[in-house]
Amino acid sequence: MTAVMSPAALDEPFAEPADKTEAFRDELFAAGLLVPTGVDGLYLRSEAFESIVRGIDGRVTREAAQDEPSASYHFPLVVPAQLLEDSDYVRSFPNLVSLLDGYVGGTEGMPAFLEAVDHGRWNKELAPTGLGLNAAACHPLYPTLRGSCLAPGGVLVELVGQVFRREPSVDPARLQVFRQHEVVFVGEAEAARAHRDLWVERGLAIHRALGLDVEAVIANDPFFGRTGRMLAANQRDEALKLELVAPIVSPEGPTAISSANCHLDHFGKTFEITCADGSVAHSACVGFGLERITLALLFKHGLDSRTWPASVRAELWP
Amino acid sequence: MTAVMSPAALDEPFAEPADKTEAFRDELFAAGLLVPTGVDGLYLRSEAFESIVRGIDGRVTREAAQDEPSASYHFPLVVPAQLLEDSDYVRSFPNLVSLLDGYVGGTEGMPAFLEAVDHGRWNKELAPTGLGLNAAACHPLYPTLRGSCLAPGGVLVELVGQVFRREPSVDPARLQVFRQHEVVFVGEAEAARAHRDLWVERGLAIHRALGLDVEAVIANDPFFGRTGRMLAANQRDEALKLELVAPIVSPEGPTAISSANCHLDHFGKTFEITCADGSVAHSACVGFGLERITLALLFKHGLDSRTWPASVRAELWP
Repeated sequence: MTAVMSPAALDEPFAEPADKTEAFRDELFAAGLLVPTGVDGLYLRSEAFESIVRGIDGRVTREAAQDEPSASYHFPLVVPAQLLEDSDYVRSFPNLVSLLDGYVGGTEGMPAFLEAVDHGRWNKELAPTGLGLNAAACHPLYPTLRGSCLAPGGVLVELVGQVFRREPSVDPARLQVFRQHEVVFVGEAEAARAHRDLWVERGLAIHRALGLDVEAVIANDPFFGRTGRMLAANQRDEALKLELVAPIVSPEGPTAISSANCHLDHFGKTFEITCADGSVAHSACVGFGLERITLALLFKHGLDSRTWPASVRAELWP
Repeated sequence: MTAVMSPAALDEPFAEPADKTEAFRDELFAAGLLVPTGVDGLYLRSEAFESIVRGIDGRVTREAAQDEPSASYHFPLVVPAQLLEDSDYVRSFPNLVSLLDGYVGGTEGMPAFLEAVDHGRWNKELAPTGLGLNAAACHPLYPTLRGSCLAPGGVLVELVGQVFRREPSVDPARLQVFRQHEVVFVGEAEAARAHRDLWVERGLAIHRALGLDVEAVIANDPFFGRTGRMLAANQRDEALKLELVAPIVSPEGPTAISSANCHLDHFGKTFEITCADGSVAHSACVGFGLERITLALLFKHGLDSRTWPASVRAELWP
């Protein structure tokens, strides 16, 4: 597998957007594919947009089906806040997470809350609910395997769901809420790495059949703070995560639309998952960014999917 | 249309769940249809569960298609917090809403935030982001029509998305995050009421063709506080909202699985939407509760959808 360094643009969480980026978003608005909500990175999506998302989703499902995954899970955007801690996501990207406040007073707190509502200060009375927004599609899987000893050959699971990253931007490819379709392996160390490598090749083939100019690059995630710099160096030096990048509008270079990631024994250790031979389980995932792939297709083939090449349409809507 | 009063159970936001309810949830867990996350009302869903959801979703789309909706929108769970205020949802149900905290300090606040991260108190540094979780599927529509004058005959729009209600419960029908498929009319007053009435009949027919013992009852929502009691009385006396109820497991009576609601000119006034004749627009919506209908079907026909009556399967998967 050939891999070059990730473009510098991916390192810049607060990079200023270019006019060209905003102009592409305006085109998407004008075509009715996205509808503004008044908040950058948060849009209503048209049925035309969604039908492309469903096409990509189905294509990934067909690819994964040949290996007969043991389960396929769909999940809500909301997760126990503890999952953001357990997955270590908050240690790496605390600037992107969101925690939920709500009314947690129960019946006995009601009179005081009623009073606050009557005086229009209900929002001051909210408190942490113990809930947060999910940050990566594979995270909800690991707690379901907590403490388990896997059969030889591990488990292969598909997951589809929304994730949240707080990074408002006029770049339509930088959404605050988006969907990932992941295929995750948990089991023996070598099998985990093989899963990652297999899906880099499959991912490249899937994207290329959709007419996208995609290549695999070593990821260089904008990890946060002191610990983050060490994690970033490790990710880069060990080539743990590869991103599949393709041109969307950004003048800073191609955008990551999918990725494939070796977690080593990180989740296995945290959630005490062991292999049949007693070793700590390793894991690896491939994640397809459904909105980003949709945007890359709209950028490449034009805003009206009815005019796209027949070969691309056949891949999406067989 | 015949309508009887809503069962008292729907008035009880903090009603204690019965053992039977929890037993049904355990059956859903054992069958792998739902997977626990450690939080009541928040579950992973299996592909078998999702395929039923998709079947219902498609059935509603086919029903709506005969009237050629002008748009069909899908939206993320996250919305501008202002929408919860503008829609008046927080005035009626402040106990169910959720607002999002996150890092909002920008580049200049980074050094202090980095310090907090290093000392493990990052979560104390989060602040309101101006975002919240959506509470009803039709709410994101109205701001897109703000200030507009509608063509004669108004607009008909489909909306599909996740909504959040903070009411943790062991009753599997009381989810904290669930999906609604809505068909919304905005336009002339009589046309809005006719839309509501048409969809009560259509909703009854759709649910009955799925083998559900459904009936329409006048809703009696558990509005909150002093203002809430007035709103509740108004909703009841004017029969503004009808719920389609069917038995799921609750021993307290049938559960609302869909509803049809006249908003009068509430959203038209708030968002300054006018009709061609200059009058303030009225609106009405029908909402199909995708997870609740799925659970009603599982309760009625059994946990293995492959064994369901052929007529039901044909409705879902034609």
